[in-house]
Amino acid sequence: MDRLSLNQITTKSWSLPEAVRGCAESGVGWIALWRDKVAEVGVDEAARLVAEHGLRVSSLCRGGFFTGVQPDGSAVDGLAQTREAIDEAARLGAEVLVLVVGGVAGGDLAASRRAVADAVDALVPQALDRGVRLGLEPLHPMQCAERSVLSTVDQALTLAEPYPAEAVGVVVDEFHVWWDPRIEESIAKAAGRIAGFHVCDQLVPLTDTLLGRALPGDGPIDHRHLKACVDAAGYTGPIEVEVFNAELWSRPGGEVLAETIAAYRDHVA
Amino acid sequence: MDRLSLNQITTKSWSLPEAVRGCAESGVGWIALWRDKVAEVGVDEAARLVAEHGLRVSSLCRGGFFTGVQPDGSAVDGLAQTREAIDEAARLGAEVLVLVVGGVAGGDLAASRRAVADAVDALVPQALDRGVRLGLEPLHPMQCAERSVLSTVDQALTLAEPYPAEAVGVVVDEFHVWWDPRIEESIAKAAGRIAGFHVCDQLVPLTDTLLGRALPGDGPIDHRHLKACVDAAGYTGPIEVEVFNAELWSRPGGEVLAETIAAYRDHVA
Repeated sequence: MDRLSLNQITTKSWSLPEAVRGCAESGVGWIALWRDKVAEVGVDEAARLVAEHGLRVSSLCRGGFFTGVQPDGSAVDGLAQTREAIDEAARLGAEVLVLVVGGVAGGDLAASRRAVADAVDALVPQALDRGVRLGLEPLHPMQCAERSVLSTVDQALTLAEPYPAEAVGVVVDEFHVWWDPRIEESIAKAAGRIAGFHVCDQLVPLTDTLLGRALPGDGPIDHRHLKACVDAAGYTGPIEVEVFNAELWSRPGGEVLAETIAAYRDHVA
Repeated sequence: MDRLSLNQITTKSWSLPEAVRGCAESGVGWIALWRDKVAEVGVDEAARLVAEHGLRVSSLCRGGFFTGVQPDGSAVDGLAQTREAIDEAARLGAEVLVLVVGGVAGGDLAASRRAVADAVDALVPQALDRGVRLGLEPLHPMQCAERSVLSTVDQALTLAEPYPAEAVGVVVDEFHVWWDPRIEESIAKAAGRIAGFHVCDQLVPLTDTLLGRALPGDGPIDHRHLKACVDAAGYTGPIEVEVFNAELWSRPGGEVLAETIAAYRDHVA
């Protein structure tokens, strides 16, 4: 249980102070924070609350969108926002800044991938300086057009390779990569680069590309198998339960956290 | 234009006789047939209609579901149905039987993949005997749980490798594989194994995992790039336009076929 981290999107109905208190009361020692929730109380107050409750921050979600477009098609300066996010992660004591790199811009997949590589290259010095690891998170291929031209762990490793492992790591999120026929060998190759392990399940039928997720145990993903792969690659850090699910989000955070802990214990740990 | 094939799912409102007549009248020389549409007129009549209109059959859709479950969760004897489909393809003069291999059964991805490999192994002698090529079609990873534990061209090649190329080939469908960071090298490796090239686009936002497709040109897929890859791998066969789209399906087949031809000419050929 000492590796469990609550990714606060899972208890979306909770504010940051509620989530921090909920974790402390339930014996969960790690939390992953989202920037919008941090902004509601301010970075300093968020850092104070986390420390007061004796928690550690597994990651801050998120930077990225380096291809210049958001999922709704509007423009965004992802590089500038990510520079802010790196500083914020440092102030929060977050070990990792999760990066959602951005989707296909201008109908040009190859150019979009180059824009991502260029952005990572530009950010590495700041990440090293602030002691924040950039966590490249491959997203499910169904999110390639809108959210992430980075789709596999193998691809993330290629992107990370030129840089020190403490500057650029790879986040393995089960929902996004469980289907990959190369996932075992990719995770093995990722030894030393794994910056996070996120668990959740996939709803079947999959009726929503973003919210079609569930607590571990409610879908086809073999959590113990993937955890064994990540363990074998030497990753000993926190394991985030991160679930996007509208029904879960509609319920009280305390109830959801209790189910999260039970699902983690029964299907992951 | 001589490589264009109408996959008859694109003109779903048309019966087989209507689709065959439509192709002949529009100068489309190839058609891909679906078993449910063939069954409406009978195999012999379907074969007669195709011959009478001077068409060739690029593929029959489809066999598969070797993991024993259908997308709705009901049981199916995929091997038995595929044996029927091979014979049917031979009678129709179809060069290829497209295989949708089936999703995850019993929550066991690895066992499901083994079941697929076993089924292919069992079918090869019949395929060789009837002169029908089994077309392993990787489906998009978002369909892994429900429809296909075969997700990438690379994985399909590994599955096909032990068998003669005339018995087991790989179908490259843009919708399913365009996001793959290894697609260029995978298609190059597929030289001699490519049993079909299917084109269509992806809707953005992607709101439906099955029907979120569009005619070429309406999405992020670079058709000329992927066609160049397939051409470079030596594939000279028919190119099917295969679109699952509810709006398209609601319109008259003639209108849809005209748009299909225009989209193929403007964005693929």
